[in-house]
Amino acid sequence: MPDPTIVSVQELSASEAKWVTLKRINWKDQTGKDRTWECAERKTRGTSGIDAVAILSIIRSKTNAFPPSTVIIEQFRPPVNSYVVELPAGLIDGNETPEAAAVRELEEETGYKADTVVESSPLEVCDPGMTTANMKLVVVRVTLEDKLETPDQKLDEGEFIVKRVVELAKLHEELKGYEGKGYVVDARLSHLAFGYDVAMRASKDLL
Amino acid sequence: MPDPTIVSVQELSASEAKWVTLKRINWKDQTGKDRTWECAERKTRGTSGIDAVAILSIIRSKTNAFPPSTVIIEQFRPPVNSYVVELPAGLIDGNETPEAAAVRELEEETGYKADTVVESSPLEVCDPGMTTANMKLVVVRVTLEDKLETPDQKLDEGEFIVKRVVELAKLHEELKGYEGKGYVVDARLSHLAFGYDVAMRASKDLL
Repeated sequence: MPDPTIVSVQELSASEAKWVTLKRINWKDQTGKDRTWECAERKTRGTSGIDAVAILSIIRSKTNAFPPSTVIIEQFRPPVNSYVVELPAGLIDGNETPEAAAVRELEEETGYKADTVVESSPLEVCDPGMTTANMKLVVVRVTLEDKLETPDQKLDEGEFIVKRVVELAKLHEELKGYEGKGYVVDARLSHLAFGYDVAMRASKDLL
Repeated sequence: MPDPTIVSVQELSASEAKWVTLKRINWKDQTGKDRTWECAERKTRGTSGIDAVAILSIIRSKTNAFPPSTVIIEQFRPPVNSYVVELPAGLIDGNETPEAAAVRELEEETGYKADTVVESSPLEVCDPGMTTANMKLVVVRVTLEDKLETPDQKLDEGEFIVKRVVELAKLHEELKGYEGKGYVVDARLSHLAFGYDVAMRASKDLL
């Protein structure tokens, strides 16, 4: 398949936009001074009050046939005109819980069925100097009987997502390798991989 | 000092906005189909082509007087009407390199002077389904002679930033503790702490 291409980009008025809008916030700072701040906001937030979830899957084999792994995705993102490497993620539907959204999105985007929700993050804000966007990270376990199966994705029409299973211990190196391919990396996934790498170096007294 | 307060919020037209704008992208997908995407964009990007940096500092003592630590910051963020716990970070000035911006911002926001740049991340995109924002994570080392000094910040007027030094091995637990205080956590910092925690659990076969 050919790569997607950007045809044109226009400035958009907030009133014409369907998905994202701009806001001006008038606020008083700690000294009582009147100040303003500009930001962007999604128009799609449901009753959960949380826009989205990302999923860190821990894929393990009951027989230790492969090392603990995770699944990442690659997709073209028009705002940055690039393929982006990300954790599986998605918007939360209507009154879905973050954990239900995480299990659903993981299966849709990667085919893997989570058997356990290990932990949900506190409420996270994505880029709080610029947007109101918020999310949770949900860690789930996918336990496979034996060797690494690669189930089929359940993508919607018009979704083009490539999944890749990566050993957790090699995630940081794998992400660095994408730079040479012209891909960019989602900041949250990249930070997670840096955290993993720093912990491994700390355990070897290599910080 | 009293907490900051939001006075009012209005929809803002892209033409009135100084810092952020909205864009409509017309693109062709992998099948050649015409599609549109809406996103927000900062108006401040300089010649580096990169909006911002975040800094993961590794604070160590030459005499091992304290465990490897890092510094995080707390600040009120009007877009999310909350105090947010974040890594030190900032926009890249003019034609500054990401690494120079990292060293400068770390000293301004926390007082700590980095002695070594350990590693810079590949280009990261902050929330690529919604914005064009991009950044790099820069890991630096701050080596102290002996015990944990807490140098003065060099904040601009109108900046209210609290810094906190946290043991790397306790970062994940510390961030969870903020939920009870009504603070929210920056997604990138939270993901980094999850990565660190998952690596520690993997090393103990506790995944």
